[in-house]
Amino acid sequence: MSSKNKVFIATSLDGYIADKQGGISWLDDIPDLGNEDMGYAAMMASTDALIMGRNSFETVLSFDIDWPYDKAVFVLSNTLKSIPPALADRVFLEKGPLKEVLKRLHSQGFKELYIDGGKTIQNFLREDLIEEMIITTIPVLLGAGIPLFGLLDKPLKFKCVESKIYAGEILQSRFLRKK
Amino acid sequence: MSSKNKVFIATSLDGYIADKQGGISWLDDIPDLGNEDMGYAAMMASTDALIMGRNSFETVLSFDIDWPYDKAVFVLSNTLKSIPPALADRVFLEKGPLKEVLKRLHSQGFKELYIDGGKTIQNFLREDLIEEMIITTIPVLLGAGIPLFGLLDKPLKFKCVESKIYAGEILQSRFLRKK
Repeated sequence: MSSKNKVFIATSLDGYIADKQGGISWLDDIPDLGNEDMGYAAMMASTDALIMGRNSFETVLSFDIDWPYDKAVFVLSNTLKSIPPALADRVFLEKGPLKEVLKRLHSQGFKELYIDGGKTIQNFLREDLIEEMIITTIPVLLGAGIPLFGLLDKPLKFKCVESKIYAGEILQSRFLRKK
Repeated sequence: MSSKNKVFIATSLDGYIADKQGGISWLDDIPDLGNEDMGYAAMMASTDALIMGRNSFETVLSFDIDWPYDKAVFVLSNTLKSIPPALADRVFLEKGPLKEVLKRLHSQGFKELYIDGGKTIQNFLREDLIEEMIITTIPVLLGAGIPLFGLLDKPLKFKCVESKIYAGEILQSRFLRKK
């Protein structure tokens, strides 16, 4: 099986994944979607593992919920020393250059990887390591915040292969890297 | 007839309307669309007049082409002293607060207005004066450039009511202000 790194994330119409204070309360404001998960379960079903940064990991831990992932999660961190014992069989620390991390995960059979967290996504894009992005656009202009995309050494071309509207107002579009 | 201010613009996937140098050469790189104008003629047909800033006006003048608009164009500028004589029956200078400019244009029968140019669009949005945005997303990440959207005093909610894909890769989506 070939490998794939994919992004599945929501942004504001002006491209922010969090407001100026790092908050995501503007996401609470979207219309009731009922049982509609906007493709999350299907995306997860084809995912072998998640890769996220320390910030995202600690944010998930801070939510007062059960651990939400049933796939292996690899946390990229050069500073984190250990994973809470309760998660030791599901969450694993990784460090070092991204291409080497990917080589290790691929050799362990983790091929289709869900890359999450703003900084981690930017780091992957800067090394042109993202093949697919499913971006859910919450149609609000925040005016400022933490942007999804960042600086690049060179432009990266994608193609939009699919777009959908949920609840009459939320846009979701799927982009594939065009090489 | 009620009035409407609308935006029809192309941006990169990371939200830039021009590259770091102000250039738009990345737009030359899109696939051949044949006679497909991505809705431009239809949008123009329902337009009474355009409003743009001095930058956009001077950019259009700098292109070695015939004047491209058959609708009245109002140029917002506090510094421009006059319009080239050849355009005096089609291009008009306006200055002062946006709401007063709009009142004047409405009273002259210009109701449906196409707001163009990055800074002008941002100024209209900052005063919550945009009702509709048709955004064509060229699926390239530039990494830096001149952003379409800017700072706002407060978030503005829209809803995405339509999305289309052109040439198998370009996304166009239509947003209406949700109040």
